[in-house]
Amino acid sequence: MSGRIVALAGGVGGAKLAHGLSALCGERLTVIVNTADDFEHLGLHVSPDLDTVMYTLGGIANPSTGWGISGETWNFLEQIGRLGGPGWFRLGDRDLATHVLRTQALRAGTRLTEVTDQLRNRLGILPRILPMTDASVRTVVETEEGPLAFQDYFVGRQCNVVTRGFRFEGIEAARPSPEVTAAFHDDGLAAAFLCPSNPFVSLDPILGIAGIRQSLAHCACPVIGVSPIIGGAAVKGPAAKMLRELGFDVSALTVAERYRDVLDGFVIDTVDAAMAPRISALGIHVEVMRTLMSSDADRRNLAEACLAFARRLAGD
Amino acid sequence: MSGRIVALAGGVGGAKLAHGLSALCGERLTVIVNTADDFEHLGLHVSPDLDTVMYTLGGIANPSTGWGISGETWNFLEQIGRLGGPGWFRLGDRDLATHVLRTQALRAGTRLTEVTDQLRNRLGILPRILPMTDASVRTVVETEEGPLAFQDYFVGRQCNVVTRGFRFEGIEAARPSPEVTAAFHDDGLAAAFLCPSNPFVSLDPILGIAGIRQSLAHCACPVIGVSPIIGGAAVKGPAAKMLRELGFDVSALTVAERYRDVLDGFVIDTVDAAMAPRISALGIHVEVMRTLMSSDADRRNLAEACLAFARRLAGD
Repeated sequence: MSGRIVALAGGVGGAKLAHGLSALCGERLTVIVNTADDFEHLGLHVSPDLDTVMYTLGGIANPSTGWGISGETWNFLEQIGRLGGPGWFRLGDRDLATHVLRTQALRAGTRLTEVTDQLRNRLGILPRILPMTDASVRTVVETEEGPLAFQDYFVGRQCNVVTRGFRFEGIEAARPSPEVTAAFHDDGLAAAFLCPSNPFVSLDPILGIAGIRQSLAHCACPVIGVSPIIGGAAVKGPAAKMLRELGFDVSALTVAERYRDVLDGFVIDTVDAAMAPRISALGIHVEVMRTLMSSDADRRNLAEACLAFARRLAGD
Repeated sequence: MSGRIVALAGGVGGAKLAHGLSALCGERLTVIVNTADDFEHLGLHVSPDLDTVMYTLGGIANPSTGWGISGETWNFLEQIGRLGGPGWFRLGDRDLATHVLRTQALRAGTRLTEVTDQLRNRLGILPRILPMTDASVRTVVETEEGPLAFQDYFVGRQCNVVTRGFRFEGIEAARPSPEVTAAFHDDGLAAAFLCPSNPFVSLDPILGIAGIRQSLAHCACPVIGVSPIIGGAAVKGPAAKMLRELGFDVSALTVAERYRDVLDGFVIDTVDAAMAPRISALGIHVEVMRTLMSSDADRRNLAEACLAFARRLAGD
């Protein structure tokens, strides 16, 4: 597959598949990343998903946490604590360089898309990494205890409150950047992937930006999703908990149904093979394979299989 | 001496004497600090002299550099370098906590005086540390090669260009904070000290803020300076070089002459004892003692001698 590839991604799971695709496609890949969990902390603009994707593709991600930089130190945060500042969101000393440079650029009027591109260039990353929009979109988690800003829910509360739903503040006014629009309207686009990211707080906000869901639904190339749910559980993060609390089955099928309007194909894990006929019945081609990415080789193998699946669906 | 004490200070030398005074006077001391070398770096408000005073009084200053925090690490700065950012101004990982919290507070509308007070409280510092003003004053060094912002001259160029003079942008409009004004008009004020700081870039800007020089000249209590020049050289920093380049004798006498309108007494080093009569001839009482502060005991001894000198001049 020699054409260009678009991948929609949130945090850890999405970053892993994007990393696999990056190894195979290099600069032919564009990763469009959720920014609805961005927030301002200590006066700094923090973009957790952009950073997870960037650090993962740059080969500097911390493999044990799923966020932050490998070999990180915490002297800044320790001193913040001594000075009475908040320590609940863990900003590492190296990680902080990203937030400081990004914040400075944004305040100077640079678009998030531009500063992200500068940072990924400096990290020697070949694929383009595009925020879903340059506008401010902020996930609010509706909970039994009232609304919570996403990071307050996710990091502050460790998701330990029952979810009732989600709002994305600012999403009606948000527009995709020219770069995102161009990526979808690229005649050389060979495939689009929905990475195995949280449907509610990673993929839904990206697909909620004006025109993106429609672009995917009508694009000429295959659109392929990879299930973030394996054997009734999420590999990482609160996706399974959210599905349960909102009354959905915790299954690959639920995710396929959620995106049936855009999906041509869906990749599920071998442990979910029995679910394939019901997903096929939605008019979605199904590929069954090992999807758990525990190693760099796993990422690459899954990416390779996804690309082969896309080629088959395109009839190449 | 049981009254309140004011000390005007710039960076290292001033901070050392302030530290000695702090040990003796505790919360009776107010240190008024130069902020004309403040600048914005990486989008952060950096106040080098305030921080040197704060870290020194807080007992966390790096004793070998004269700036920054003891046992500092540099992972942030290393990563800034990887990301293509500037490394010429060395922000340590712990030090950064000060700049980030201060910048956030200033952007939220907190005055520099207030955020400084919060920080010194968190560091367990008893004396009040007051920026000379809450307004923006910026030292510009006029050089043979044209004007340079102070930190570009001091850190960027390591002072390796000939000085022609100094401007303090914004000083005409700047006013002392209510806290600074109150410190000078305190009926309980027992002494005011001009710490051994650079006359041109530390003391001149403080004395240039509307009303401060006049307050000192007319205050009822003794005003005592300590020479930053010992034996024709500055202990640290470019004071001697500046004096020379501007055509002054590099001597304690030059400093005494510069502040003769405000000084009741002047402390010079034993190596400069021969200069005492010429300083006395200016109408300034002279105290000759060892003024080099190589240890905490030196700081305390000098502070003690300064306080005794003030008591004598006050006729107590």
